[in-house]
Amino acid sequence: MTFRSEVEKWCIQEVTAAGRTDGNPFTDYTIKGIFSGKNETVSVHGFYDGDGIYKVRFMPSFEGHYKFTIEGTFCENAGDPISGEFDVIAPEHGNHGPVRVANKYHFAYEDDTPYYSVGTTCYVWELQSDDMIERTFKTLREGVFNKIRFCIFPKHYAYNLGEPRSYPYVGTPMDSSILNDENFGQYTGREGDNNWDFSRFNLEHFRHIERCIGRLSDMGIEADLIVMHPYDRWGFAWMKPGDDDLYWNYVIARFAAYRNVWWSLANEYDLMGGKTLGDWERNAGIICSEDPYNHLRSIHNCKLMYDYTRPWVTHCSIQRQDLYKSAELVDEYRVRYGKPVVMDEMAYEGDIQYGWGNITAQEMVRRFWEASCRGGYAGHGETYLSADNKLWWSHGGVLHGESAERLKFLHGILAKTPGIGLKPYNKERSDEVVAVPEEEQFCDVYSYYLCYYTFMQPRFRDFYFDDRTKFHVNVIDTWNMTVEDRGTYYGHFRIALPGKQYMAVQLIKTE
Amino acid sequence: MTFRSEVEKWCIQEVTAAGRTDGNPFTDYTIKGIFSGKNETVSVHGFYDGDGIYKVRFMPSFEGHYKFTIEGTFCENAGDPISGEFDVIAPEHGNHGPVRVANKYHFAYEDDTPYYSVGTTCYVWELQSDDMIERTFKTLREGVFNKIRFCIFPKHYAYNLGEPRSYPYVGTPMDSSILNDENFGQYTGREGDNNWDFSRFNLEHFRHIERCIGRLSDMGIEADLIVMHPYDRWGFAWMKPGDDDLYWNYVIARFAAYRNVWWSLANEYDLMGGKTLGDWERNAGIICSEDPYNHLRSIHNCKLMYDYTRPWVTHCSIQRQDLYKSAELVDEYRVRYGKPVVMDEMAYEGDIQYGWGNITAQEMVRRFWEASCRGGYAGHGETYLSADNKLWWSHGGVLHGESAERLKFLHGILAKTPGIGLKPYNKERSDEVVAVPEEEQFCDVYSYYLCYYTFMQPRFRDFYFDDRTKFHVNVIDTWNMTVEDRGTYYGHFRIALPGKQYMAVQLIKTE
Repeated sequence: MTFRSEVEKWCIQEVTAAGRTDGNPFTDYTIKGIFSGKNETVSVHGFYDGDGIYKVRFMPSFEGHYKFTIEGTFCENAGDPISGEFDVIAPEHGNHGPVRVANKYHFAYEDDTPYYSVGTTCYVWELQSDDMIERTFKTLREGVFNKIRFCIFPKHYAYNLGEPRSYPYVGTPMDSSILNDENFGQYTGREGDNNWDFSRFNLEHFRHIERCIGRLSDMGIEADLIVMHPYDRWGFAWMKPGDDDLYWNYVIARFAAYRNVWWSLANEYDLMGGKTLGDWERNAGIICSEDPYNHLRSIHNCKLMYDYTRPWVTHCSIQRQDLYKSAELVDEYRVRYGKPVVMDEMAYEGDIQYGWGNITAQEMVRRFWEASCRGGYAGHGETYLSADNKLWWSHGGVLHGESAERLKFLHGILAKTPGIGLKPYNKERSDEVVAVPEEEQFCDVYSYYLCYYTFMQPRFRDFYFDDRTKFHVNVIDTWNMTVEDRGTYYGHFRIALPGKQYMAVQLIKTE
Repeated sequence: MTFRSEVEKWCIQEVTAAGRTDGNPFTDYTIKGIFSGKNETVSVHGFYDGDGIYKVRFMPSFEGHYKFTIEGTFCENAGDPISGEFDVIAPEHGNHGPVRVANKYHFAYEDDTPYYSVGTTCYVWELQSDDMIERTFKTLREGVFNKIRFCIFPKHYAYNLGEPRSYPYVGTPMDSSILNDENFGQYTGREGDNNWDFSRFNLEHFRHIERCIGRLSDMGIEADLIVMHPYDRWGFAWMKPGDDDLYWNYVIARFAAYRNVWWSLANEYDLMGGKTLGDWERNAGIICSEDPYNHLRSIHNCKLMYDYTRPWVTHCSIQRQDLYKSAELVDEYRVRYGKPVVMDEMAYEGDIQYGWGNITAQEMVRRFWEASCRGGYAGHGETYLSADNKLWWSHGGVLHGESAERLKFLHGILAKTPGIGLKPYNKERSDEVVAVPEEEQFCDVYSYYLCYYTFMQPRFRDFYFDDRTKFHVNVIDTWNMTVEDRGTYYGHFRIALPGKQYMAVQLIKTE
């Protein structure tokens, strides 16, 4: 048995033990750890990691001395617990813990640092070549995004018909040489020419993914794991409930101890013809019982919105329902669901033939600002045609678009919000999108206003709050990324604007 | 008595007769004409035009010989009819008659020439100085617009606080020197310092407006007359039902014989606190009984849509109900109301502080294309701040924007529609806006498709209708106003596009 004698809070203690190799170690034996410190006792299932090695992973939520015991049928002397002790030390700089819901509609790390989600989607960036993966990490290092959505299963879809670097199961995939742009839609994997053993996981697939999760964690990026999805030619979308359950348990046992994990039960769950509402609720139940850290949980729709009021759902992960209004509905979704609203798919910046993948950078940035000033969050994706047929949205790699740096600029503005999170300010004027701090209530005058003018191009706007409160006024060009200090105002005042789209006015109450 | 011995079809025969001047000729006496030709007998009320002169106006709808008699209490020998005869000759080039509803959702002139409405709004252009009015006519001569919305009563509203050139009634207005940008909203005319005799019309006001209507008619421009409106400091919006009835009857008697008249009962009817639904229905009833030519009739909303299914309504005249979707709802309005849909107010191109008056030229043009490809029509307006404080939307004058020439380009495309009018083509793809000819029904393949890509920027689109029908394909850049001939295609085909917004593809079935 091996384990570390000292582990950082919200990092991983991994206990490794040798065990049985006869039969099918993935299904025939169990391993479980019970970890106890002063403030918590956590029981977690472990997993088989090949070559007779079993592992149990644990993420401590408190500092101090911990003891643990390992038990299960995995070793010959089943029933004899193995035990040990270790110390949990303070988190290092940059380790803020897992992201939690805060202020009902927002997020913060467990150490109370606000988390303003600026996500992107690269469905199978981690299943590309080493080169390509490094290019993605290099792009992510620019620091625009603090969340990335990606799949555990490989993806079969337009612009993504190649073989993944590895498969999740032992076996052989169908012959992909017969695929082309026209016929790929016929291959759903339902009655395929695939040959998988759904009871034996391909360890290299999972080891590789968890290395990626770990590197993302080091970069401060949340891993919004899409555990299931319909873009499939291998049958992974059509597994039976027993196989699904095995998969879910294995995924949770391996990944849950990474502090940056979010569970996205599925992408476009409603396109998965093999699953029922009962399946999704059962899968959610597995997460709730098997993930002791209560990582964020959601599920992503295509046409049919999931009922995000379900108690297991921690936040909405919404795809737009309308060609013209997406982020513009965030305030309505807040009312409807009473949870954080993340517009994970509002169409992507790009120029492919599909409407979901050909909006301008300006429109992408505009939608982010709409979502932000309506008290929610948005997701980026990029789908520009490129010579190498690598699209960020699917493969990762490099960005060709112009929205990303503007999203970083937006994040900088959001990070200055007093308290945690913005909420929509409902007043009589319907021709601006105004946000105030979420936690200020029953105020005649708030301490902070962020007023966004979206596609409109006023030459000025008039303001009045009361006769005496002074505000420091900044005029923000959200596209050109400038903040112009306009000084202090009170009473009735007029702020000149340049008569361009995408402007905002920030009003900060002064003493 | 005077009248013309020969009059063009759809032009005006005006019979002038001397009569009584004692008492109040506007209310105390009647005059009526009965005009008979081979195909019609029309009875119309005349009006008092001052200086003892009474007039009856008639617009013949057929060629040939007509007889008429004039009767009423207007002259001393009340009861003795005056009569005459005249000939109606063929209409000259450019005279197509009044605009009618055609193909249920569209318009055509009475001679069956299709009418594709490209309107603008200049609320009180005709109540400006002579100079300003001539500047407006010069702009209109550019030929972009074939409809203009304007008011009979003067307007009191932001950017329009000056005195009109004339008032509709004998009397004196309130002192306008006390008005400024801040206090103007307090003056609604309800209990004003105005002094009007609502039983005596100011003839110069009406004579001037009808000269303007006549000049518009000569230019082929429909006069969408806003008969009532709420932007008032003089009390015209708060007259009593009896005064309203007198006004309506007078307006109809004077203006109805102009073939280019459309009746807009009100602008933002729901902001007129002095009127009830019953008032509007009564006003509509007066038009229906007093306008023998059945000019187009509608009423324009602010927040509360009128019930456009009312039988007297010939077409919808809609103001947007949402900041983001206006023209995008035209197909829904078609279904809801079953009549032509004219989006008379979708926000204006400009840069004033109000959201209804600060969209870009690109957005204005985009909304026109949305309306068109969804089987409806749209209205233009312009509200750029200018040094002389003259805004096209209110005063007319010159245009500063960039949308107008693109609307002329759009009109040129629409005029090539087979038959009369486009309808939305509902198919599975939700990321394009496609129109086909209204009158083609139950077609597997239509003779014409106009596909619009709005704010999206695809690099190509794929098409398939059937295996053999050949289409001539044009790629239209709706902003740069180019039509690129791409030749003929059939079966599965791909059309390259430039990866820009505002593109359209026109497919014309060939033999």
